Amino acid sequence: MNCDKIKKQSIAKIVDTENVSKASKCSYILTANVIKIEKKGIKTMLRIKYEELLKEFERVLISRGFNEKNALDAATVFAQNSLDGIYSHGINRFPRVVEYLDKGEINPDVVATCEMSMGAIERWEGHRGFGPLNAKQAMDRAIELAKQYGIGMVALGNSNHWMRGGSYGWQAADAGCIGICWSNTMPNMPAWGGKDRKIGNNPLILSVPKSNGDHVVVDCAVSQFSYGKIEEARLKGQKLPVPGGYDEDGNLTTDPAAIEKTWRVLPMGYWKGSGISILLDLISTVLTNANSVQKIGTFGDEIGLSQIMIAIDPGKFNDAETTDRIVDELVADIRSPERLSKKAWATSVFSFKLPNPFPAFCHKVILTGRFFCRRFLRRVDRVKIYFIIHKTFPLLNFY
Amino acid sequence: MNCDKIKKQSIAKIVDTENVSKASKCSYILTANVIKIEKKGIKTMLRIKYEELLKEFERVLISRGFNEKNALDAATVFAQNSLDGIYSHGINRFPRVVEYLDKGEINPDVVATCEMSMGAIERWEGHRGFGPLNAKQAMDRAIELAKQYGIGMVALGNSNHWMRGGSYGWQAADAGCIGICWSNTMPNMPAWGGKDRKIGNNPLILSVPKSNGDHVVVDCAVSQFSYGKIEEARLKGQKLPVPGGYDEDGNLTTDPAAIEKTWRVLPMGYWKGSGISILLDLISTVLTNANSVQKIGTFGDEIGLSQIMIAIDPGKFNDAETTDRIVDELVADIRSPERLSKKAWATSVFSFKLPNPFPAFCHKVILTGRFFCRRFLRRVDRVKIYFIIHKTFPLLNFY
Repeated sequence: MNCDKIKKQSIAKIVDTENVSKASKCSYILTANVIKIEKKGIKTMLRIKYEELLKEFERVLISRGFNEKNALDAATVFAQNSLDGIYSHGINRFPRVVEYLDKGEINPDVVATCEMSMGAIERWEGHRGFGPLNAKQAMDRAIELAKQYGIGMVALGNSNHWMRGGSYGWQAADAGCIGICWSNTMPNMPAWGGKDRKIGNNPLILSVPKSNGDHVVVDCAVSQFSYGKIEEARLKGQKLPVPGGYDEDGNLTTDPAAIEKTWRVLPMGYWKGSGISILLDLISTVLTNANSVQKIGTFGDEIGLSQIMIAIDPGKFNDAETTDRIVDELVADIRSPERLSKKAWATSVFSFKLPNPFPAFCHKVILTGRFFCRRFLRRVDRVKIYFIIHKTFPLLNFY
Repeated sequence: MNCDKIKKQSIAKIVDTENVSKASKCSYILTANVIKIEKKGIKTMLRIKYEELLKEFERVLISRGFNEKNALDAATVFAQNSLDGIYSHGINRFPRVVEYLDKGEINPDVVATCEMSMGAIERWEGHRGFGPLNAKQAMDRAIELAKQYGIGMVALGNSNHWMRGGSYGWQAADAGCIGICWSNTMPNMPAWGGKDRKIGNNPLILSVPKSNGDHVVVDCAVSQFSYGKIEEARLKGQKLPVPGGYDEDGNLTTDPAAIEKTWRVLPMGYWKGSGISILLDLISTVLTNANSVQKIGTFGDEIGLSQIMIAIDPGKFNDAETTDRIVDELVADIRSPERLSKKAWATSVFSFKLPNPFPAFCHKVILTGRFFCRRFLRRVDRVKIYFIIHKTFPLLNFY
């Protein structure tokens, strides 16, 4: 069974696990307990057990030189991100990671090491290891420093793509800390006023803990749309809800195909995101003395990234009840406004309808700044995630 | 001489200092050595000596209870911001500060005090004192902590508007530190998806030092446009270059008058700026245990703000030459791209023409994220700043 077949047929029946695990040229849709393929337009939903995908990731990573513990940790990152609907940093990214492993650009058997330490700040060397494991280690150390000094910072150089940046915000919050972290990237966006890609969409993460784990996290790249979202809109035959980049004549456009021709995407907030991107890159490069966005652009692939992890322990000033109360009050207030009418909301920005008022889970998406990515959120009682077939998506089973 | 007269007449002649210092219902235009009034459309340019304006600010502040040192420091903030072209936090803001002083909402004779201290973090109480002096004191202390621990943070609660946030980024950089700071504000923007104003445009500042003082600073509120810029566009009869808010039907619009009817302005990057705003407010409220945006909204005026000052000393890892080289390389790279054609640039976003390629000073503006505000930059050799007459602008001479 391959993607072409799925696209050509109108399939809406249960298939057995065996067939799905062997599926080739297919993207995976995850659910806790059913495996199903169905077709709605170009949207193809396929469901597979989380545990099964996790094991498949693990198998591939071990075959590329990961030890068992690291393979499980790394596989968990990809499977969990997919389960959360963040395919761009889950199953969609996995093939590129395997490609980088095969090219020797990601080193599977190294760990990051501390190179310099002074009080509450440390500089770590990532040795081009696996990004998420290095980043987790760096945030763990920033948290330790915050427990000791109130605030801690680790500057991690020569690492690799950390996948979903929000993970490290959650990690800080799980330890009771405020998290502030960012990564630089390859040059993938023109600076404001420029034509060629000179700056990164350097994702920025901010998080605040709640003692019951219901943390508040923002995770957003400083581009208005990710490349994946622009492609998704084109595949669906939709315009972007707001301008996302320039066409070949240098005009702002909502046409995803026109943007794909120039790949000149917009920073969020136009000149504002451009300035923020430059400063995030500059700070991370100065503190790591490793690779800037410009330097990363000379490597061919997106490797050797610079990342900053800052943790602050509010427990040094507040008891947990105080912090919880502040978070609860603020979130309750944000959730309580008079909403746009359903019609006004739908016509003003989005081309699809939203419930009005938003249910809590929708609001959470808005808080995270990942509206598009997390349109269908994982919920404890109903794991149901959709996935858009990606024409060029390589096969897990190729590996 | 009053504003109405200036508007009705076509004045383009030198007037003497005496007349200008007595000007009523006029806004001030500053220059180092000339005083001139001229009219171009609704744009009225008036020039006055920096020293004269400084003294006038100082006189008014002393009359409201400031001691001489604080009055000079505070007057310098307003005069310097005006000289830099940041009228919204210079001469335009001064009347509101005097109003707050008269209402007892700003306390002229207090200084911020340290309430809690733990390692590299401190919580300070601003006692509703004058914002810029409190903020400067807080950043001074964050810098001291950074010199000691590598990183330092001061959470300043119950302070007041800090005027131009970039000042504190420059302050950190002047001390050789990276600066990261932000303030919350009154609720002045709807959260993404909401209708009523629930979140602040909480300005965020990032700065990186250079040993020769040519620091790189981003200072941007997380709204797409300031209220002042929307009003300025209406007065000029212009559309905004990109959507800036909603009209009464809930549609996104570039019409400043329509936005002024709803005052529903857009966050930068739509959902992204909304999420960032919420988290900046949440972090500052948790760390100060003082006032959130929501709470500030209950005060009637914009007082009792919460601010975070973080300083990081890169000198702990790099010598100054290394940091300078990194900054120089990055800025040189950003300045070197292929530019949009003049026509494409002008038609795509701005309604006015820009030189192509940008001269260095234009680029610096883009880096700061204050393109509109700092269109006419102060330069050492040519201090020439324009100002738009503001109909409702109160008189300095009223005080």
